[in-house]
Amino acid sequence: PDLCASTPGSSLPLHGQELYAGTTKKMKINRKVKGRPQEEILEIAVRPGWKKGTKITFQEKGDEDQGIIPADIVFVIDEKPHPRFRREGNDLYFTAVVSLADALCGTTLQIPHLDGTTIDLPIRDVIRPGESKVLRGKGMPVTKEPGAFGNMVLKFDVKFPRELSDATKQQLRAILPSH
Amino acid sequence: PDLCASTPGSSLPLHGQELYAGTTKKMKINRKVKGRPQEEILEIAVRPGWKKGTKITFQEKGDEDQGIIPADIVFVIDEKPHPRFRREGNDLYFTAVVSLADALCGTTLQIPHLDGTTIDLPIRDVIRPGESKVLRGKGMPVTKEPGAFGNMVLKFDVKFPRELSDATKQQLRAILPSH
Repeated sequence: PDLCASTPGSSLPLHGQELYAGTTKKMKINRKVKGRPQEEILEIAVRPGWKKGTKITFQEKGDEDQGIIPADIVFVIDEKPHPRFRREGNDLYFTAVVSLADALCGTTLQIPHLDGTTIDLPIRDVIRPGESKVLRGKGMPVTKEPGAFGNMVLKFDVKFPRELSDATKQQLRAILPSH
Repeated sequence: PDLCASTPGSSLPLHGQELYAGTTKKMKINRKVKGRPQEEILEIAVRPGWKKGTKITFQEKGDEDQGIIPADIVFVIDEKPHPRFRREGNDLYFTAVVSLADALCGTTLQIPHLDGTTIDLPIRDVIRPGESKVLRGKGMPVTKEPGAFGNMVLKFDVKFPRELSDATKQQLRAILPSH
């Protein structure tokens, strides 16, 4: 759990891993209490599966002032962009880059999972560009249904060779179906 | 030039070829003149490159009624969806379907053009999925600049074989670069 300085109503950016597993964040705020500045720690229990836009409100934690009810302090969850995953609701989208040889001849993909493990996924069928594959239950946890998870959707980016020699082209033409 | 029945303010759907070359449309309308129903033909000179949404107004061609100026009759150009082209402004988008063998080994594509001809396009380089190629001046005519044309943008849809025998896979693995 980090200790962060913070201003009232600020955004709280979290990594995908933190939103996956849940975490506790301690937020330091500065407020006036009985006319004197005071430091206070607010603790946020981030539950697994929280989404961007989730609001956490600490009631009456703003500056005190005579005869006035202090304002609420609000934090808004934000998702730090992940280099490889895109989140949509409870589903995660992952683009797997495969060579043309692997796409045609088969391979075992190693897919990172936000729980920290790696998924080994043997592929025997031909992978076609634009194709997608759903890994059930490998997405984000569903906050309101403990034990339930979204899916991971794999998209494939098939990397073609930049150029091929005439000899290779001739061999390929002989091997590959013409339609 | 067709002869179409029409209601005031109606849409006039045209084929891409008609919008490319220009055409003349005769629209039949029924209006009241001096209290009696009358048929009238309105002629629309469609200029090359007209876009969806272009409005043609025939002033005071609505029903006559005592002491009232007749309404205008308005036609709005619409584009009939083309099975193979998508238009964006003056540009045409065309998806060329190629086999994996042709994508890797080269081919001559035959691209239909809205002027009625076919463009022969020799391809020597490897075609990668998602790649696009611009054919300058092969798009729609620019109505306001006679002699000027938009571009045709080719997108490639590389068709992979559904399945390959183990023997073919072995041969491919030996021929294709591993990365």
